[in-house]
Amino acid sequence: MPQLQLHPDRLFPSDSNVRAIARELYASVKDLPIISPHGHTDPSWFANNTPFDNAADLLIKPDHYVFRMLYSQGIKLTDLGVPTADGSATSTDNREIWRLFATNYHLFAATPSRMWLDHVFSEVFGFTDKLDSSTADQYFDAINEQLATPEFLPRALLDRFNIELIATTESALDTLPHHQKIQQDGLGHRVITAYRPDNVVDPDYEGFTDNLAEFGRITGCDISTWAGYLNAHRNRRAYFKSMGATSTDHGHPTARTANLSLSECEALYDIVKQGKATAEQADTFRGQVLTEMAGMCLEDGLVMQLHPGSVRNHNAQLFSQFGRDKGADIPERTEYVRALKPLLDKYGNEPNFTLILFTLDETVYSRELAPLAGHYPCLRLGPPWWFHDSPEGMRRFRQQATETAGIFNTAGFNDDTRAFLSIPARHDVARRMDCVSLAEWVSDHRIGLDEAMTLAYEMAYGLAKRAYKLG
Amino acid sequence: MPQLQLHPDRLFPSDSNVRAIARELYASVKDLPIISPHGHTDPSWFANNTPFDNAADLLIKPDHYVFRMLYSQGIKLTDLGVPTADGSATSTDNREIWRLFATNYHLFAATPSRMWLDHVFSEVFGFTDKLDSSTADQYFDAINEQLATPEFLPRALLDRFNIELIATTESALDTLPHHQKIQQDGLGHRVITAYRPDNVVDPDYEGFTDNLAEFGRITGCDISTWAGYLNAHRNRRAYFKSMGATSTDHGHPTARTANLSLSECEALYDIVKQGKATAEQADTFRGQVLTEMAGMCLEDGLVMQLHPGSVRNHNAQLFSQFGRDKGADIPERTEYVRALKPLLDKYGNEPNFTLILFTLDETVYSRELAPLAGHYPCLRLGPPWWFHDSPEGMRRFRQQATETAGIFNTAGFNDDTRAFLSIPARHDVARRMDCVSLAEWVSDHRIGLDEAMTLAYEMAYGLAKRAYKLG
Amino acid sequence: MPQLQLHPDRLFPSDSNVRAIARELYASVKDLPIISPHGHTDPSWFANNTPFDNAADLLIKPDHYVFRMLYSQGIKLTDLGVPTADGSATSTDNREIWRLFATNYHLFAATPSRMWLDHVFSEVFGFTDKLDSSTADQYFDAINEQLATPEFLPRALLDRFNIELIATTESALDTLPHHQKIQQDGLGHRVITAYRPDNVVDPDYEGFTDNLAEFGRITGCDISTWAGYLNAHRNRRAYFKSMGATSTDHGHPTARTANLSLSECEALYDIVKQGKATAEQADTFRGQVLTEMAGMCLEDGLVMQLHPGSVRNHNAQLFSQFGRDKGADIPERTEYVRALKPLLDKYGNEPNFTLILFTLDETVYSRELAPLAGHYPCLRLGPPWWFHDSPEGMRRFRQQATETAGIFNTAGFNDDTRAFLSIPARHDVARRMDCVSLAEWVSDHRIGLDEAMTLAYEMAYGLAKRAYKLG
Repeated sequence: MPQLQLHPDRLFPSDSNVRAIARELYASVKDLPIISPHGHTDPSWFANNTPFDNAADLLIKPDHYVFRMLYSQGIKLTDLGVPTADGSATSTDNREIWRLFATNYHLFAATPSRMWLDHVFSEVFGFTDKLDSSTADQYFDAINEQLATPEFLPRALLDRFNIELIATTESALDTLPHHQKIQQDGLGHRVITAYRPDNVVDPDYEGFTDNLAEFGRITGCDISTWAGYLNAHRNRRAYFKSMGATSTDHGHPTARTANLSLSECEALYDIVKQGKATAEQADTFRGQVLTEMAGMCLEDGLVMQLHPGSVRNHNAQLFSQFGRDKGADIPERTEYVRALKPLLDKYGNEPNFTLILFTLDETVYSRELAPLAGHYPCLRLGPPWWFHDSPEGMRRFRQQATETAGIFNTAGFNDDTRAFLSIPARHDVARRMDCVSLAEWVSDHRIGLDEAMTLAYEMAYGLAKRAYKLG
Repeated sequence: MPQLQLHPDRLFPSDSNVRAIARELYASVKDLPIISPHGHTDPSWFANNTPFDNAADLLIKPDHYVFRMLYSQGIKLTDLGVPTADGSATSTDNREIWRLFATNYHLFAATPSRMWLDHVFSEVFGFTDKLDSSTADQYFDAINEQLATPEFLPRALLDRFNIELIATTESALDTLPHHQKIQQDGLGHRVITAYRPDNVVDPDYEGFTDNLAEFGRITGCDISTWAGYLNAHRNRRAYFKSMGATSTDHGHPTARTANLSLSECEALYDIVKQGKATAEQADTFRGQVLTEMAGMCLEDGLVMQLHPGSVRNHNAQLFSQFGRDKGADIPERTEYVRALKPLLDKYGNEPNFTLILFTLDETVYSRELAPLAGHYPCLRLGPPWWFHDSPEGMRRFRQQATETAGIFNTAGFNDDTRAFLSIPARHDVARRMDCVSLAEWVSDHRIGLDEAMTLAYEMAYGLAKRAYKLG
Repeated sequence: MPQLQLHPDRLFPSDSNVRAIARELYASVKDLPIISPHGHTDPSWFANNTPFDNAADLLIKPDHYVFRMLYSQGIKLTDLGVPTADGSATSTDNREIWRLFATNYHLFAATPSRMWLDHVFSEVFGFTDKLDSSTADQYFDAINEQLATPEFLPRALLDRFNIELIATTESALDTLPHHQKIQQDGLGHRVITAYRPDNVVDPDYEGFTDNLAEFGRITGCDISTWAGYLNAHRNRRAYFKSMGATSTDHGHPTARTANLSLSECEALYDIVKQGKATAEQADTFRGQVLTEMAGMCLEDGLVMQLHPGSVRNHNAQLFSQFGRDKGADIPERTEYVRALKPLLDKYGNEPNFTLILFTLDETVYSRELAPLAGHYPCLRLGPPWWFHDSPEGMRRFRQQATETAGIFNTAGFNDDTRAFLSIPARHDVARRMDCVSLAEWVSDHRIGLDEAMTLAYEMAYGLAKRAYKLG
């Protein structure tokens, strides 16, 4: 039976000098508490603290990294039990789903999913044999058994994972009942929300005009006017802030920002609110709202995050069958220098404003993002995102951004995940890879070991806390 | 006299742990038969099995990698004997041509051409002194002498090179006489063709309307109509398939695809067939034909290859003097995500369709190609192409594509070359570099050695056979 | 007290084999004279040979790498004494400025600025303690004291730094009084100028029409006509050449070139000279002048340099307060293949023309620049520029450009700096990193050690001399 054993030196370079330095640095940060300031876990877990379902429902059906790869090799999503949006049947045989996954586990060789999953299997569930078709049932049964125990309740895992703080992400229309419960139960300091208003900002979002109506209803603002629309955002931001939010998040097709006159804004909003915006008008509107959001950050102190550059729902057939977030979001080229100028012209030099930038287009690290963040006081660079949240992706980020932006213009790590059990694995990969970068710089005498120790702490813990204004 | 000696550890990292693993992996694949599913060797060599000409005609005049570099340093193409298209004189003094090449051989330091040529000189011809001006004549005479022997006949070299299968590439207008002869001689299982219809698909191709007429003539189809034009393709595809073809290949300026209505197709074809297409119409037409070709792949089972992104014949003066393929094809930025959407919307989820994508724009590996191939069941990634068929190019491909696409969404190696003698050298570089990637992942514990052994076999042999449906 | 000590193996890989080779190569080039064929030092230093001012005026206020990073972390430029353009106050307390810099010196960890500054502190000023808040005053006093000594006069430093040749860069309107003095003092062979006509070529340049008038005045040419305008360039080029210039330099937003008919040029110039050019016309004009400059290079033998791709003065607020060159120039995507075609169609095959290309967009190394330079006889690749003049930037350049362009199509190193004291540091980093690339190729047997020795010499010294036609 092939053994599953996480090597203590995993991800460290083979060279004995560099490895020794990496080990020393990693030892100093591996047990630091986890700060998870941006992610997509379900707040009902922490509010209700009820047991997770079986292995397939927890680890396969909701993880688009996992079913994306299986789908690419010809496995049907319905055979994996992915829920359909069009009402067509999907497998409910969780054991068979798990077996199908196990049989194809070799497809994940050398991917981060494999690393995260093996970490979960070994560290969270205690397996010592590798997952394959021969161990599929053993895994399925043992996972389900453990999930039913008190040690695997969500709040117990928060403790076990040493999570000091975790932020979820909710839409502008969410009334945050789970966060209310979380606060009532005294967990408000550990589990907070973040304001993600895409569904009332993006005229191309499904149901946008209905969303606007609901936005008006829950805020009591007159969303028939631009001023009322902005006030509805102010209202919701304040409410999210009362539920712990320290940040907003914006997932836009591009990084475009705009700085229109008031009358232009009003005229544009009149078109947008009726659902009549052209593609160009929709993009301008999204860009204008980003600039307005930056202004509100100066009012209420929230930190702003921008995640642009994903072509959502690229696979039309799959989207109609399964709906959003089914692994068919594909990055495209993303421009920041001219796109961000209107916002930066207005707020770029404000000392109390923070805008954390993410990208799916790695070519901008050295060409655009590092030069921008190495100049504008408001800018910080978020960690490698999504497809690039991986050992090689992290290495490229540090190699391409550091020489121009330095370390202190970066915002630490965040896991950006809905896969709760993988959070320690993801932070562990980030801590290891940051220690590898530091160890390489120490080994070729670019920085001293003492300096590297300080930087390792910042990259694992300090930078995220400061960038997101946490405690 | 400087010695020429191929080091057994060439291209392996210096670190002793990684090198040892790379050695072990490489030992397990180095003697696997060569699968060469995409290339440009001349089928008349294998049909006629007559001796190759002298060293200059074999190794310099047809190799645009070689004369490109010499030209960039001020050496005239006519001094290298490159044949002219405009009838102007070119050198016929092959010994002088060889001397000129030898004298400038230092220009190739650290390039793949140098690696391939040294491999040919050492392994194929048995030289033990390095090529330079002092050894030029010795090389010239010894190569010519060996080329005249039976051991250097094309079919003998097929055996000696351990080539299990090699595909040539022929135009839609080629009647494939050499492949007929190859089949008659019982070599049809080893030397096959591939269908490359650019000259009847691309309205900007030299002589396009004449080509269309010829296309109708040889197929007996009525190419005055869109339906007849498509049938002519069906006819030719079937004939190519009977000559062993398992794939088509398309070399387009962009990756654009289209999915027009039948009436739009008919109207567009009416313009195109008269040679009156605008640049935009020509690009749409190429894109529409790509989608039609995908549909035909579902009918006849051929695999589709797309090689976009080269600005052909960039050097206008050289093109008029020497014609196509003279080293002045320069890559440009290439977009895939929106370009391929029409084709993928129609056929992207078909289980029996395979589209192998190539690129000259490495920025798309992590941003576009790996996310696409890591999702769509029909997509596979071809190996690093042309300028990127090199040690560093291969390293970047594995580092940037693997974490999202995995290994099983790649299509193994192909040499894409007309330089027959360099085929073993090129596959050897690919096998070494793939083993280096694997060795690095083993050494930092991302994968196990047993898993790496399996993957090394797949990368050297298995993936290409399956992706191209060979045997 | 933390020690400042430059490690003799800095920037060399940890692997003992590679490090040993790198050491040997570096030993052979580290003492070669410095060729600095492109830079921005002030010629008045060498003409007047008066002592430099204090530490803050020499090392902080003029160095946009330094104050850019400090500004990005919230430190005001006026607190750093950066001179204002709008007349607002700026700090004149040089000791406080220095302390502020010293206190924040940790921000530069792992950046090239830190490496250059530590080199200057250790090698030029002899410090043995690291710079931080506790050593700030010690540094400030000791630097000022040394600057007042004869050993720190500019000409003495030319000797001490072993600078064989340094080129400054002057505008087309500069009458070059300092270079006249330099020639009179017999230093003309060591300190030369370069012709940078942006302010009379770029219709978007501040004061462009006034500049044109001055251009006519100082040349006596009739700049009301296109022919007269071109003659004014010829006149100035000849004068710059008499002041030692061997090159021109062009800093354009894009790499666009044009090849208009004479009547089109005349019509365009009529618009441009009145300051009425649209953005598109301005870009065409810049492109046309580049092609004209190439033609003049054939007449007068000057070498042409092109530095495109920077969005200048991105921070509008800072630009209005402080003026040009204040750290807010941000790169953007830059296209070369189609942009350069008009110029290359006309002059690309000329054996006596040299065009050295630079870029801030690293994606073009492997995709565009190396294929172009590996074909066109006139093209050479300049070293990594600006943000990319760094260890990782240099590594990426060699990894991405060499396999297609080779080494002999590159133009050696240039420091492109106004920070005179850092010139040895910058050349030292380049020599080390080039030796690292060579050592890696030797260690994995791509090239031999003897060949690497020759290449190291070329990269450190020979290539720059030949590319810039120096001596």
